[in-house]
Amino acid sequence: MRILILGGDGYLGWPTAMYLSQRGHEVGLLDNGSKRKWEAELGVEPLLPVRSLDERVRAWKERTGRQLDVFIGDLREFDFVHDTLESFNPDAIVHYGEQPSAPYSMMDVDHAVFSQVNNVVGNLHVLWALKDVAPHCHLVKLGTLGEYGTPNIDIEEGYIEIEHKGRKDRLPFPKQPGSFYHLSKVHDSHNIAFACRIWKLAATDLNQGVVYGIETDESKVDSRFETSFHYDGVFGTALNRFCVQAVAGIPLTVYGKGGQKRGFLNIRDTLRCVELALTNAAKPGEFRVFNQYTEVFSIGELAEMTAEQARKLGLTVKVEHLPNPRVEMEEHHYHVVNDNLLGLGLKPRKLSDELIDSMLKKISAARDRIKMETILPHVKWNSAAPLPERRVLTSTSGR
Amino acid sequence: MRILILGGDGYLGWPTAMYLSQRGHEVGLLDNGSKRKWEAELGVEPLLPVRSLDERVRAWKERTGRQLDVFIGDLREFDFVHDTLESFNPDAIVHYGEQPSAPYSMMDVDHAVFSQVNNVVGNLHVLWALKDVAPHCHLVKLGTLGEYGTPNIDIEEGYIEIEHKGRKDRLPFPKQPGSFYHLSKVHDSHNIAFACRIWKLAATDLNQGVVYGIETDESKVDSRFETSFHYDGVFGTALNRFCVQAVAGIPLTVYGKGGQKRGFLNIRDTLRCVELALTNAAKPGEFRVFNQYTEVFSIGELAEMTAEQARKLGLTVKVEHLPNPRVEMEEHHYHVVNDNLLGLGLKPRKLSDELIDSMLKKISAARDRIKMETILPHVKWNSAAPLPERRVLTSTSGR
Repeated sequence: MRILILGGDGYLGWPTAMYLSQRGHEVGLLDNGSKRKWEAELGVEPLLPVRSLDERVRAWKERTGRQLDVFIGDLREFDFVHDTLESFNPDAIVHYGEQPSAPYSMMDVDHAVFSQVNNVVGNLHVLWALKDVAPHCHLVKLGTLGEYGTPNIDIEEGYIEIEHKGRKDRLPFPKQPGSFYHLSKVHDSHNIAFACRIWKLAATDLNQGVVYGIETDESKVDSRFETSFHYDGVFGTALNRFCVQAVAGIPLTVYGKGGQKRGFLNIRDTLRCVELALTNAAKPGEFRVFNQYTEVFSIGELAEMTAEQARKLGLTVKVEHLPNPRVEMEEHHYHVVNDNLLGLGLKPRKLSDELIDSMLKKISAARDRIKMETILPHVKWNSAAPLPERRVLTSTSGR
Repeated sequence: MRILILGGDGYLGWPTAMYLSQRGHEVGLLDNGSKRKWEAELGVEPLLPVRSLDERVRAWKERTGRQLDVFIGDLREFDFVHDTLESFNPDAIVHYGEQPSAPYSMMDVDHAVFSQVNNVVGNLHVLWALKDVAPHCHLVKLGTLGEYGTPNIDIEEGYIEIEHKGRKDRLPFPKQPGSFYHLSKVHDSHNIAFACRIWKLAATDLNQGVVYGIETDESKVDSRFETSFHYDGVFGTALNRFCVQAVAGIPLTVYGKGGQKRGFLNIRDTLRCVELALTNAAKPGEFRVFNQYTEVFSIGELAEMTAEQARKLGLTVKVEHLPNPRVEMEEHHYHVVNDNLLGLGLKPRKLSDELIDSMLKKISAARDRIKMETILPHVKWNSAAPLPERRVLTSTSGR
């Protein structure tokens, strides 16, 4: 299968590229280096050195003999998107090419607007280009479980059968996203659903939980294959950040009560889920939604699990509750259906003590690279006060 | 009350300004002249000559002694929005300042992207400026009934109580909008709901039906007060266009079977609804939704009603069914709750033979100004082929 990966230089994009290439697919990578620019803007760094995309691709060729095609450019340039689709002629697209951070989108008005314009316009360009030059190509789009928020009913996969005043319909599941970033993904989902309806495009929206993990079968083969592992207050996610805090000898910071429940999955399962979506494609005109996670944890639970493993390694660890910088429910119902991917054959890799243990050990080896000052949250949802020195956007088209 | 009207130069914005000024409110108008630019781009014109905003405002002062403050600028410029709110210090904002046409948004990729960026970014800037300088100001935002699409259940006002697997919640009503324009309004609604939740802003989303009518109590006083009445294939809406077609002696063009049902209301009722929302403000943190229409008609019915009145005036009229340029259901359930505005005291002006009769007569007097070549639809939903000579966007920031 010919597969084009948008955002192929990122935390998930690069491991996905290796995974699919390893399995014999023809893989193309599209990226504009945004993530590296945002890192520079914020003064944050991935824990492990991430090689340039060129160097990664060359190293991959050297180790495996397999070619990855690279397209450098911005999804906000329609002609670039159009021409790339025309020349690569993909059977499927995996679309990770978006600004992925909730705190980043909440920094100030510029970052909120940038996040929505960047994500929505890039995605609209993909849809129009698909219509124009690749209408049979299957779009696999990364969404997020955060689109749903935390309703007091079970969360279905994208749609819900509603019976109301004696009539029935299967309708889009109501969305209550929790940041301008999460909102951008909701906008994307609505736009994709419409495009599938009017143009008969085929799309799968992967509403993914929080991903944890630092390596995959492919990444661990060669240090040049490491992925972009973040632990900072803007791009780092819960378990990854906790592990770094434990190694750094600073408190594991839980926001608020810690009763916030979220769906989680191992980065290796992300790759498998994407593969399952690709090899079981949506039909023309179909917009389907898979809830992509394997287990639900509360943030507080995760912190305690991490602390426990860290203590076994002789680390001194405590869990600290910070005033919650976000506006979110800290105790709530959370039951998320994920039958679609299980039905296609996903065998969940549950979070194990061994996994946390191996993450802690890998992080310990890179301990010297931890930038302490980037770990705590600086962005607040209800004041959204930016750090003054961080106001300047590196991107040119935020508004 | 100090009320700032965004899009104050438009079909609804200008009559709203006069209506509220007449009733003793301090009214400010904000506009960037976009609608006039889009008209020039497409070669379309309002039926009656529309004076410049300056001239209108001077004439209003001359006839009534009342001042309207004018702010010329673009909602996509945050500093302009911020500074305008700071200097005018409104108690309420009425936000009509968006690209309002579904066909315009479907012309091509540039127009789709422009419509979403223009509307979403303008609205985001309003939200952030409200948070910064006017958090107690009530935002009255024009949405559209088209956000809901045509589900097979009754359409509630913004929210629906869902009972699912033994649990219950009141959730946002699912949205299935039918164009990139309608999608932009769905994006706005989600963004506003979030801003109300995290910043305790107060907002009312008026999900309005199709407005018809050519005059209001204020507009008919002086020809300089005429509003921007459109009948063309891009900005004209059903009843308005049918009346012009009847006068022009060309067939009334119904798209497809004509069984498409929509909510309609008289432009005078729009003004009253906005007034009711303003004088019964939402509370801090509240995001409420009013479905704003008075009657449901099918498009076919409306055409027949218009034809019947026109024949009484001696006009020769026939109704013609065109292949539907849109992708939409042509026969469907449609029952839309509108209790909120009725509960606040709205007395619907039902569509009468007299109203159609008076519209036909007013249009007849301007018969010579009808540009025949602009009436038929050129924009198709599932090919979206633009007229080649119309490709150039006048705006500078479509993408």
